[in-house]
Amino acid sequence: MSRQALVAILTALFTSVVQANSTPADAPDKAVQVLYPAAPQNAQKGAPEHFTGEVRVDRLFPANDTAHYSGAYVTFQPGARSAWHMHPAGQHIVVTQGVALSGTRDGKIFRAETGDSLWCPPGVEHWHGATPDAAMTHLVITGVRDGRNVVWQEHVTDAQYRGQP
Amino acid sequence: MSRQALVAILTALFTSVVQANSTPADAPDKAVQVLYPAAPQNAQKGAPEHFTGEVRVDRLFPANDTAHYSGAYVTFQPGARSAWHMHPAGQHIVVTQGVALSGTRDGKIFRAETGDSLWCPPGVEHWHGATPDAAMTHLVITGVRDGRNVVWQEHVTDAQYRGQP
Repeated sequence: MSRQALVAILTALFTSVVQANSTPADAPDKAVQVLYPAAPQNAQKGAPEHFTGEVRVDRLFPANDTAHYSGAYVTFQPGARSAWHMHPAGQHIVVTQGVALSGTRDGKIFRAETGDSLWCPPGVEHWHGATPDAAMTHLVITGVRDGRNVVWQEHVTDAQYRGQP
Repeated sequence: MSRQALVAILTALFTSVVQANSTPADAPDKAVQVLYPAAPQNAQKGAPEHFTGEVRVDRLFPANDTAHYSGAYVTFQPGARSAWHMHPAGQHIVVTQGVALSGTRDGKIFRAETGDSLWCPPGVEHWHGATPDAAMTHLVITGVRDGRNVVWQEHVTDAQYRGQP
Protein backbone atom coordinates (compact mmCIF):
# COMPACT_ATOMS: atom_id res chain seq x y z
CA MET A 1 0.00 0.00 0.00
CA SER A 2 1.33 3.46 -0.87
CA ARG A 3 1.89 6.07 1.79
CA GLN A 4 -0.72 8.33 0.09
CA ALA A 5 -3.33 5.59 0.22
CA LEU A 6 -2.60 4.97 3.89
CA VAL A 7 -3.01 8.68 4.67
CA ALA A 8 -6.30 8.75 2.72
CA ILE A 9 -7.65 5.76 4.65
CA LEU A 10 -6.60 7.18 8.01
CA THR A 11 -8.14 10.57 7.12
CA ALA A 12 -11.43 8.95 6.09
CA LEU A 13 -11.43 6.86 9.28
CA PHE A 14 -10.76 9.97 11.42
CA THR A 15 -13.51 11.94 9.65
CA SER A 16 -16.05 9.16 10.11
CA VAL A 17 -15.17 8.89 13.80
CA VAL A 18 -15.60 12.66 14.24
CA GLN A 19 -18.94 12.63 12.40
CA ALA A 20 -20.19 9.63 14.32
CA ASN A 21 -19.46 11.55 17.50
CA SER A 22 -21.13 14.75 16.32
CA THR A 23 -24.16 15.91 18.25
CA PRO A 24 -26.71 18.42 16.97
CA ALA A 25 -26.85 21.77 18.77
CA ASP A 26 -30.35 21.07 20.05
CA ALA A 27 -29.46 17.71 21.55
CA PRO A 28 -29.97 17.36 25.28
CA ASP A 29 -26.27 16.49 25.61
CA LYS A 30 -24.90 19.00 28.10
CA ALA A 31 -21.33 18.44 26.96
CA VAL A 32 -21.54 20.33 23.66
CA GLN A 33 -21.56 24.00 22.74
CA VAL A 34 -24.88 25.51 21.65
CA LEU A 35 -25.20 28.20 18.97
CA TYR A 36 -28.08 30.70 19.17
CA PRO A 37 -28.17 32.40 15.75
CA ALA A 38 -29.52 35.92 15.45
CA ALA A 39 -32.90 35.66 13.68
CA PRO A 40 -35.87 37.91 12.85
CA GLN A 41 -38.15 35.76 15.00
CA ASN A 42 -36.07 36.67 18.07
CA ALA A 43 -37.27 40.29 17.79
CA GLN A 44 -40.44 41.62 19.35
CA LYS A 45 -41.97 45.02 19.94
CA GLY A 46 -41.92 46.25 23.54
CA ALA A 47 -45.46 45.78 24.85
CA PRO A 48 -47.29 49.14 25.34
CA GLU A 49 -48.26 48.13 28.89
CA HIS A 50 -44.58 47.83 29.83
CA PHE A 51 -42.98 50.61 27.78
CA THR A 52 -43.55 54.24 26.73
CA GLY A 53 -42.54 54.97 23.14
CA GLU A 54 -41.01 52.65 20.57
CA VAL A 55 -38.95 49.79 21.96
CA ARG A 56 -37.61 46.60 20.36
CA VAL A 57 -36.41 43.51 22.22
CA ASP A 58 -34.03 41.11 20.43
CA ARG A 59 -33.66 37.92 22.43
CA LEU A 60 -30.10 36.52 22.35
CA PHE A 61 -30.05 33.39 24.54
CA PRO A 62 -32.26 31.78 27.21
CA ALA A 63 -31.37 30.88 30.79
CA ASN A 64 -30.29 27.27 31.33
CA ASP A 65 -29.73 24.84 34.21
CA THR A 66 -26.22 26.18 34.83
CA ALA A 67 -26.55 29.86 33.93
CA HIS A 68 -29.64 31.34 35.58
CA TYR A 69 -29.84 34.40 33.35
CA SER A 70 -30.98 35.24 29.83
CA GLY A 71 -29.53 37.76 27.36
CA ALA A 72 -31.18 40.26 25.01
CA TYR A 73 -30.63 43.54 23.22
CA VAL A 74 -33.22 46.22 23.97
CA THR A 75 -33.40 49.28 21.70
CA PHE A 76 -35.24 52.45 22.72
CA GLN A 77 -36.07 55.22 20.27
CA PRO A 78 -35.53 58.82 21.53
CA GLY A 79 -37.65 59.50 24.62
CA ALA A 80 -38.70 55.86 24.97
CA ARG A 81 -38.37 54.14 28.35
CA SER A 82 -39.55 51.11 30.26
CA ALA A 83 -42.27 51.20 32.89
CA TRP A 84 -41.21 50.97 36.53
CA HIS A 85 -40.17 47.40 37.33
CA MET A 86 -37.87 45.27 39.41
CA HIS A 87 -35.86 42.10 38.80
CA PRO A 88 -36.16 39.33 41.43
CA ALA A 89 -32.60 38.17 40.63
CA GLY A 90 -31.10 41.47 39.45
CA GLN A 91 -29.94 42.62 36.04
CA HIS A 92 -26.75 43.85 34.39
CA ILE A 93 -27.02 46.19 31.42
CA VAL A 94 -24.19 47.05 29.02
CA VAL A 95 -24.83 50.13 26.86
CA THR A 96 -23.91 49.29 23.26
CA GLN A 97 -25.25 52.40 21.49
CA GLY A 98 -26.22 55.87 22.69
CA VAL A 99 -26.70 56.93 26.30
CA ALA A 100 -28.93 55.08 28.77
CA LEU A 101 -30.87 56.69 31.59
CA SER A 102 -31.95 54.61 34.59
CA GLY A 103 -34.00 56.04 37.43
CA THR A 104 -34.89 54.72 40.88
CA ARG A 105 -37.64 55.61 43.39
CA ASP A 106 -35.25 57.82 45.39
CA GLY A 107 -35.18 60.24 42.44
CA LYS A 108 -31.70 59.30 41.24
CA ILE A 109 -31.16 58.99 37.49
CA PHE A 110 -28.02 57.24 36.33
CA ARG A 111 -26.55 58.25 32.98
CA ALA A 112 -24.61 55.38 31.33
CA GLU A 113 -22.64 56.03 28.15
CA THR A 114 -21.80 53.51 25.42
CA GLY A 115 -19.43 50.95 26.95
CA ASP A 116 -20.61 51.56 30.52
CA SER A 117 -22.33 48.83 32.54
CA LEU A 118 -24.96 49.14 35.23
CA TRP A 119 -25.96 46.64 37.93
CA CYS A 120 -29.49 46.74 39.26
CA PRO A 121 -29.75 44.63 42.43
CA PRO A 122 -32.72 42.33 43.14
CA GLY A 123 -35.89 44.11 44.17
CA VAL A 124 -34.78 47.67 43.36
CA GLU A 125 -37.63 49.43 41.56
CA HIS A 126 -36.33 51.32 38.54
CA TRP A 127 -36.81 52.23 34.89
CA HIS A 128 -34.44 52.59 31.95
CA GLY A 129 -34.58 54.23 28.58
CA ALA A 130 -33.07 56.47 25.95
CA THR A 131 -32.30 60.17 26.29
CA PRO A 132 -34.94 62.50 24.80
CA ASP A 133 -33.00 63.12 21.59
CA ALA A 134 -31.14 59.91 20.66
CA ALA A 135 -31.82 56.20 20.34
CA MET A 136 -30.16 53.80 22.79
CA THR A 137 -29.42 50.07 22.75
CA HIS A 138 -28.31 48.07 25.74
CA LEU A 139 -27.52 44.41 26.16
CA VAL A 140 -29.31 43.09 29.24
CA ILE A 141 -28.35 40.05 31.30
CA THR A 142 -31.33 39.26 33.46
CA GLY A 143 -31.32 36.82 36.36
CA VAL A 144 -34.15 34.33 36.77
CA ARG A 145 -35.49 33.28 40.19
CA ASP A 146 -38.40 30.86 40.60
CA GLY A 147 -39.13 31.22 36.90
CA ARG A 148 -39.50 35.03 37.02
CA ASN A 149 -37.09 37.67 35.74
CA VAL A 150 -39.19 40.84 36.02
CA VAL A 151 -42.12 42.27 37.98
CA TRP A 152 -43.79 45.11 36.10
CA GLN A 153 -45.31 48.22 37.65
CA GLU A 154 -46.84 51.50 36.41
CA HIS A 155 -45.59 53.66 33.55
CA VAL A 156 -42.94 56.34 34.09
CA THR A 157 -44.49 59.80 33.83
CA ASP A 158 -42.94 62.55 31.73
CA ALA A 159 -42.05 64.39 34.96
CA GLN A 160 -40.29 61.32 36.41
CA TYR A 161 -38.45 60.83 33.11
CA ARG A 162 -37.24 64.44 33.27
CA GLY A 163 -36.06 63.94 36.86
CA GLN A 164 -38.67 66.21 38.42
CA PRO A 165 -40.02 65.43 41.89
CA MET B 1 -39.96 84.39 29.43
CA SER B 2 -39.13 82.98 26.00
CA ARG B 3 -39.64 79.33 25.25
CA GLN B 4 -35.90 78.96 24.63
CA ALA B 5 -35.07 80.37 28.07
CA LEU B 6 -37.55 78.02 29.71
CA VAL B 7 -36.02 75.02 27.95
CA ALA B 8 -32.52 76.15 29.04
CA ILE B 9 -33.62 76.49 32.68
CA LEU B 10 -35.35 73.11 32.69
CA THR B 11 -32.31 71.47 31.10
CA ALA B 12 -29.98 73.00 33.72
CA LEU B 13 -32.35 71.91 36.50
CA PHE B 14 -32.53 68.39 35.10
CA THR B 15 -28.73 68.19 34.86
CA SER B 16 -28.19 69.47 38.42
CA VAL B 17 -30.74 66.99 39.80
CA VAL B 18 -28.96 64.12 38.06
CA GLN B 19 -25.53 65.24 39.28
CA ALA B 20 -26.66 65.87 42.86
CA ASN B 21 -28.03 62.37 43.10
CA SER B 22 -24.98 60.60 41.71
CA THR B 23 -23.58 57.85 43.91
CA PRO B 24 -20.05 56.51 43.66
CA ALA B 25 -19.84 53.15 41.92
CA ASP B 26 -18.19 51.54 44.95
CA ALA B 27 -21.04 52.30 47.38
CA PRO B 28 -21.52 49.28 49.68
CA ASP B 29 -25.31 49.64 49.78
CA LYS B 30 -26.84 46.59 48.09
CA ALA B 31 -30.13 48.41 47.48
CA VAL B 32 -28.74 50.88 44.95
CA GLN B 33 -27.76 50.60 41.34
CA VAL B 34 -24.04 50.48 40.59
CA LEU B 35 -22.45 52.11 37.54
CA TYR B 36 -19.29 50.59 36.04
CA PRO B 37 -17.95 53.26 33.68
CA ALA B 38 -15.87 52.22 30.67
CA ALA B 39 -12.29 53.28 31.40
CA PRO B 40 -8.81 52.78 29.92
CA GLN B 41 -7.68 50.94 33.07
CA ASN B 42 -10.29 48.23 32.38
CA ALA B 43 -8.34 47.16 29.27
CA GLN B 44 -5.51 44.67 29.27
CA LYS B 45 -3.54 42.80 26.64
CA GLY B 46 -4.29 39.08 26.34
CA ALA B 47 -1.41 37.27 28.06
CA PRO B 48 0.85 35.44 25.55
CA GLU B 49 0.60 32.23 27.61
CA HIS B 50 -3.18 32.20 27.12
CA PHE B 51 -3.54 33.62 23.60
CA THR B 52 -1.98 33.41 20.11
CA GLY B 53 -1.80 36.76 18.28
CA GLU B 54 -3.05 40.14 19.42
CA VAL B 55 -5.95 40.11 21.87
CA ARG B 56 -7.42 42.83 24.11
CA VAL B 57 -9.68 42.25 27.10
CA ASP B 58 -11.94 45.11 28.26
CA ARG B 59 -13.48 44.28 31.62
CA LEU B 60 -17.08 45.48 31.94
CA PHE B 61 -18.34 44.38 35.36
CA PRO B 62 -17.34 41.91 38.08
CA ALA B 63 -19.32 39.02 39.54
CA ASN B 64 -21.20 39.83 42.75
CA ASP B 65 -23.01 37.98 45.54
CA THR B 66 -26.21 37.70 43.49
CA ALA B 67 -24.91 37.38 39.93
CA HIS B 68 -22.16 34.77 39.79
CA TYR B 69 -20.74 35.90 36.46
CA SER B 70 -18.54 38.70 35.14
CA GLY B 71 -18.71 40.55 31.82
CA ALA B 72 -16.02 41.66 29.38
CA TYR B 73 -15.40 42.48 25.75
CA VAL B 74 -12.60 40.45 24.13
CA THR B 75 -11.21 41.64 20.80
CA PHE B 76 -9.10 39.37 18.56
CA GLN B 77 -7.08 40.66 15.62
CA PRO B 78 -7.20 38.52 12.42
CA GLY B 79 -5.88 35.01 13.10
CA ALA B 80 -5.75 35.55 16.86
CA ARG B 81 -7.31 32.97 19.19
CA SER B 82 -7.35 31.84 22.79
CA ALA B 83 -5.46 28.79 24.06
CA TRP B 84 -7.50 25.68 24.85
CA HIS B 85 -9.41 26.22 28.08
CA MET B 86 -12.59 25.37 29.94
CA HIS B 87 -14.95 27.28 32.22
CA PRO B 88 -15.96 25.59 35.51
CA ALA B 89 -19.34 27.41 35.44
CA GLY B 90 -19.75 27.84 31.67
CA GLN B 91 -19.68 30.91 29.47
CA HIS B 92 -21.98 32.74 27.06
CA ILE B 93 -20.47 34.76 24.25
CA VAL B 94 -22.30 37.33 22.11
CA VAL B 95 -20.50 38.30 18.90
CA THR B 96 -20.55 42.10 18.58
CA GLN B 97 -18.18 42.56 15.61
CA GLY B 98 -16.89 40.20 12.92
CA VAL B 99 -17.18 36.40 12.94
CA ALA B 100 -16.13 34.21 15.87
CA LEU B 101 -14.73 30.71 15.56
CA SER B 102 -14.94 28.29 18.49
CA GLY B 103 -13.48 24.80 18.37
CA THR B 104 -13.85 21.80 20.66
CA ARG B 105 -11.76 18.63 21.17
CA ASP B 106 -14.11 16.61 18.93
CA GLY B 107 -12.89 18.62 15.95
CA LYS B 108 -16.01 20.76 15.56
CA ILE B 109 -15.55 24.45 14.87
CA PHE B 110 -18.58 26.68 15.39
CA ARG B 111 -18.87 29.83 13.27
CA ALA B 112 -20.83 32.60 15.02
CA GLU B 113 -21.70 35.78 13.13
CA THR B 114 -22.27 39.24 14.58
CA GLY B 115 -25.42 39.05 16.72
CA ASP B 116 -25.15 35.30 17.30
CA SER B 117 -24.64 33.88 20.80
CA LEU B 118 -22.82 30.72 21.86
CA TRP B 119 -23.13 28.76 25.11
CA CYS B 120 -20.16 26.76 26.27
CA PRO B 121 -21.19 24.39 29.09
CA PRO B 122 -19.04 23.81 32.19
CA GLY B 123 -15.98 21.66 31.64
CA VAL B 124 -16.07 21.59 27.83
CA GLU B 125 -12.53 22.17 26.52
CA HIS B 126 -12.55 24.69 23.68
CA TRP B 127 -10.94 27.74 22.11
CA HIS B 128 -12.31 30.86 20.41
CA GLY B 129 -10.92 33.48 18.14
CA ALA B 130 -11.18 35.60 15.00
CA THR B 131 -11.23 34.35 11.43
CA PRO B 132 -7.87 34.53 9.63
CA ASP B 133 -8.72 37.72 7.74
CA ALA B 134 -10.87 39.91 10.00
CA ALA B 135 -10.92 41.17 13.58
CA MET B 136 -13.63 39.93 15.94
CA THR B 137 -15.07 41.22 19.21
CA HIS B 138 -17.32 39.24 21.50
CA LEU B 139 -18.94 40.10 24.79
CA VAL B 140 -18.34 37.25 27.24
CA ILE B 141 -20.43 36.44 30.30
CA THR B 142 -18.38 34.04 32.36
CA GLY B 143 -19.67 32.06 35.33
CA VAL B 144 -17.61 31.84 38.51
CA ARG B 145 -17.50 28.70 40.66
CA ASP B 146 -15.37 28.43 43.81
CA GLY B 147 -13.59 31.61 42.79
CA ARG B 148 -12.50 30.32 39.37
CA ASN B 149 -13.88 31.20 35.95
CA VAL B 150 -11.34 29.57 33.63
CA VAL B 151 -8.82 26.71 33.55
CA TRP B 152 -6.16 27.29 30.91
CA GLN B 153 -4.52 24.60 28.77
CA GLU B 154 -2.06 24.50 25.84
CA HIS B 155 -2.02 26.78 22.82
CA VAL B 156 -4.11 26.03 19.73
CA THR B 157 -1.85 24.94 16.86
CA ASP B 158 -2.17 26.40 13.38
CA ALA B 159 -3.51 23.03 12.17
CA GLN B 160 -6.18 22.93 14.91
CA TYR B 161 -7.14 26.54 14.10
CA ARG B 162 -7.55 25.57 10.44
CA GLY B 163 -9.71 22.59 11.41
CA GLN B 164 -7.18 20.00 10.35
CA PRO B 165 -6.84 16.72 12.24
